[in-house]
Amino acid sequence: MSPTPRSSLTRSKERGRTDRADLDAILDAGLLCHLGVILHGTPVVLPTIYGRDGDTLYLHGSTGSGNMRAAMTGDVSLTVTHVDGIVYARSAMHFSMNYRSAVIHARPTELTDPDERMHALRIIVDQAAPGAWDAVRSPNKKEMAATMVLAVDLTEASVKVRTGGPRDDAEDIATGGVWAGVLPIRQVFDAPIPSDDLDPGIEVPAHVLQRCSDAVPAAI
Amino acid sequence: MSPTPRSSLTRSKERGRTDRADLDAILDAGLLCHLGVILHGTPVVLPTIYGRDGDTLYLHGSTGSGNMRAAMTGDVSLTVTHVDGIVYARSAMHFSMNYRSAVIHARPTELTDPDERMHALRIIVDQAAPGAWDAVRSPNKKEMAATMVLAVDLTEASVKVRTGGPRDDAEDIATGGVWAGVLPIRQVFDAPIPSDDLDPGIEVPAHVLQRCSDAVPAAI
Repeated sequence: MSPTPRSSLTRSKERGRTDRADLDAILDAGLLCHLGVILHGTPVVLPTIYGRDGDTLYLHGSTGSGNMRAAMTGDVSLTVTHVDGIVYARSAMHFSMNYRSAVIHARPTELTDPDERMHALRIIVDQAAPGAWDAVRSPNKKEMAATMVLAVDLTEASVKVRTGGPRDDAEDIATGGVWAGVLPIRQVFDAPIPSDDLDPGIEVPAHVLQRCSDAVPAAI
Repeated sequence: MSPTPRSSLTRSKERGRTDRADLDAILDAGLLCHLGVILHGTPVVLPTIYGRDGDTLYLHGSTGSGNMRAAMTGDVSLTVTHVDGIVYARSAMHFSMNYRSAVIHARPTELTDPDERMHALRIIVDQAAPGAWDAVRSPNKKEMAATMVLAVDLTEASVKVRTGGPRDDAEDIATGGVWAGVLPIRQVFDAPIPSDDLDPGIEVPAHVLQRCSDAVPAAI
């Protein structure tokens, strides 16, 4: 991670993290990013799936997508955020969120090599659905021709993490009488819902089932 | 919702929703938005808390924040996304997410009236922590002086919702043998964690406790 003016934090610097492992962990835990492009002179922010492989983040979209074309011809900002809790303070202005966020700045490049493109799509599917790529039909020529694949370099990134309880003013703590603390937030996977048109007898595969374990309390 | 070129969908139009109630529901269920501004000619996307009141969405930040100043002097895009499930298909290119997203385009205005500013901050705190505002110390003059409050009009917005199972190709369904369906995703609140410096005997208030009910299975 190489700090540049736009990837250097100006606010709440104590939340900044400069360890590359923090960046990777935030990106790897994400299901989608918010991609910001400039289209017709104004910003546009769109939820977009992605996948990370080493120092590269991959995006894909339809060749007919104006946003993808904008991402190919100019700078983008790409942000992944996890909300971990709501911080209840003793005064309104100290309310906060516990979160982990990564903001990437880059100029994406379009991939043209067929093998690289196929690899990128595998990375994207594996990020959303680990283990699924090998179980399903691969993209065919027609699908590949309709798909744009972009590579985003992860060099220019800023990472912020907030953890822990409220940072209340000493006077408010002394006054007392107000509950303060954190309401933790977590994302869970519930039991898989088979497709209506699924052939009877096809079991839920292990790579799907194993994601649900967090959602099912051990006592049930 | 008044469609303009930049708020009109060009891809996956069947996912578009034009009912204003859908927009409100997505915004009201959100804990943060991703705010896109143009700073020094490039897009920047940052996680930002907000609150909605009627046709207006409120943002706040430090008067020293370059991103807030950028949001005050130019167009912004502001996106709220909920991920509801991962769609497992029979072919790689049909993998998808179930989601609800709202993309707002606007030119924010800075609030200067003290009562309006205070009202906006109440709306923002109540969005993150419903019921908390009345239980805690209100912002004082010094805090208000250091805070910028922006109002965003909700007129120019696009809403997209994807629900249901995979839309596989007929040939892939006929081939069979591959599991297809949806892995539902849900955000839950776990039991509140009191602040280390909390006076003993201060109970968790009802407005906090009632948010946790979803996280605790009825059987436990």
